[in-house]
Amino acid sequence: MDCNKKIQIIDVGPRDGFQNVKSFIDTPTKLAIIDGLYQSGIRVIEVTSFVSPKAIPQMVDAADVAKAVIARYVDLRPIALVPNLRGAENAFESGIREVVCVISASEAHNSANVNRTIDESLASLNTIIKALPTMQVRLDVATAFGCPFSGKVPEENVLHLVEAATKLGVQGITLCDTIGVANPAQVRSLLAAMQREFPATSLALHFHNTRGMGLANICVAAEMGVRDFETSAGGLGGCPFAPGSEGNTATEDTVHMLHEMGYETGIDLDKLLGTVQCIADHVDAPLTGKMLGVHKSTCSNISGNAN
Amino acid sequence: MDCNKKIQIIDVGPRDGFQNVKSFIDTPTKLAIIDGLYQSGIRVIEVTSFVSPKAIPQMVDAADVAKAVIARYVDLRPIALVPNLRGAENAFESGIREVVCVISASEAHNSANVNRTIDESLASLNTIIKALPTMQVRLDVATAFGCPFSGKVPEENVLHLVEAATKLGVQGITLCDTIGVANPAQVRSLLAAMQREFPATSLALHFHNTRGMGLANICVAAEMGVRDFETSAGGLGGCPFAPGSEGNTATEDTVHMLHEMGYETGIDLDKLLGTVQCIADHVDAPLTGKMLGVHKSTCSNISGNAN
Repeated sequence: MDCNKKIQIIDVGPRDGFQNVKSFIDTPTKLAIIDGLYQSGIRVIEVTSFVSPKAIPQMVDAADVAKAVIARYVDLRPIALVPNLRGAENAFESGIREVVCVISASEAHNSANVNRTIDESLASLNTIIKALPTMQVRLDVATAFGCPFSGKVPEENVLHLVEAATKLGVQGITLCDTIGVANPAQVRSLLAAMQREFPATSLALHFHNTRGMGLANICVAAEMGVRDFETSAGGLGGCPFAPGSEGNTATEDTVHMLHEMGYETGIDLDKLLGTVQCIADHVDAPLTGKMLGVHKSTCSNISGNAN
Repeated sequence: MDCNKKIQIIDVGPRDGFQNVKSFIDTPTKLAIIDGLYQSGIRVIEVTSFVSPKAIPQMVDAADVAKAVIARYVDLRPIALVPNLRGAENAFESGIREVVCVISASEAHNSANVNRTIDESLASLNTIIKALPTMQVRLDVATAFGCPFSGKVPEENVLHLVEAATKLGVQGITLCDTIGVANPAQVRSLLAAMQREFPATSLALHFHNTRGMGLANICVAAEMGVRDFETSAGGLGGCPFAPGSEGNTATEDTVHMLHEMGYETGIDLDKLLGTVQCIADHVDAPLTGKMLGVHKSTCSNISGNAN
């Protein structure tokens, strides 16, 4: 394997995708989908979220999911999202050793999302890192490319937040395009700044496909050397408050493009599409990935001046 | 205006889009949609196709559409597709002075599409060029990136076809990804070969978004200097024999991305989205562009650990 061409996919569907599904997905179904992702070759999965079941009832079985996954797979990195120390402690008790915390690069969005200032969120992050020294803690920088309230987010805001979090000791950063506004030129610019300022930081990217630019952004980021991308099988998830728009960039579309471009993900696309079909069959949410439709049909009968 | 950043959009919806719509779109509706595209700032439009009405009943009013468009706009380049000399002559009689002919880079697809060998198609192209010396003739190279029958299409096949057509005197080439399989690495490779072999050729690209890579391909091609892209308002058109898959890359999504990246198209996106809404209201076909949905909704109320 050409290491320079190796890309790691982090599937966030069981967390970011499921949390947006209104009707409860029972625990065995969640575990079956996670198993499908694993069997297709995905080795890093956001498996659940240790949040208040009042806020997100879908995640009431977080501990059960986490324990089952940890017991079952020895070579899987299961990640859980935690909103605060209590969530991180619950995750730790369930055996989770890698969590992700979310802070927005935009004050307006951080306030709307978690009702805290960015400084308050950083203080909470610090509490988690100090209280659980053996826990790997990643930071998701939400609205890193744009905010639904304040528009374009200056690069300095992102860099300041990353610097502050890095000083606290986070072990990885994910820049998230929460509302799907990032464009390839902007991605290139912010990545250049990140690589200049934080060359040693483990960096992942998380794009939404709301405006159709998900794969374009992944393409330019991969060419700039980023090797970790968060995507969601089926494109599940995203912004529940933007009807008609898409959510996460689909894992299967990303894997297909990367393979075609000569990158290696270790993922079996056919097996993955089987799992996406399983999601389509058992999860009450529209899927937005394109490869499942292509997989099911054959464009074998074109006529009439097709071009 | 920075000429280096100026990109020309050729909207092919009234031809490539409409020809795939089963129920007849009446002539005034067709003209209203073309007018909407013009009013939004688009100055090159494939307005119709001079084909046998038996083969494509939707195009029975080709002469009426062409004449009306030519009478109405002085600064629009109306292009018509023609399958043969008879079509080209009919187009010429209607006042059309720029036509596009289609030849596939794959023998198998050319045979399925027009029941001719590539050499026979080139001979037909030659007849048109010789018979109508004042007509501008472009060539659409279909299946330039892949064929539904024979898979990957070697670059040499594309280059040979372009060379033969250029010798006959075509005034422009469009490389068409008929079935939406092109990936950014492949686009870059074929473009490099085209720019090396045919540096003086007027080159346009036509991508389908079947596998979600339409904007990624346009992004890398724009960065390599291509300045002409064929797209379709609403994403109308594409492959009618691939249910669940998308067709043409949507003009509105392309314009949005290019503007965000700093390119200039001369197109007013809000006006264009008004026309896409008009298409949604009056044309019985699913639209696949994303910007109309984003335009209608506002992602202004995110909560629950959105990232």
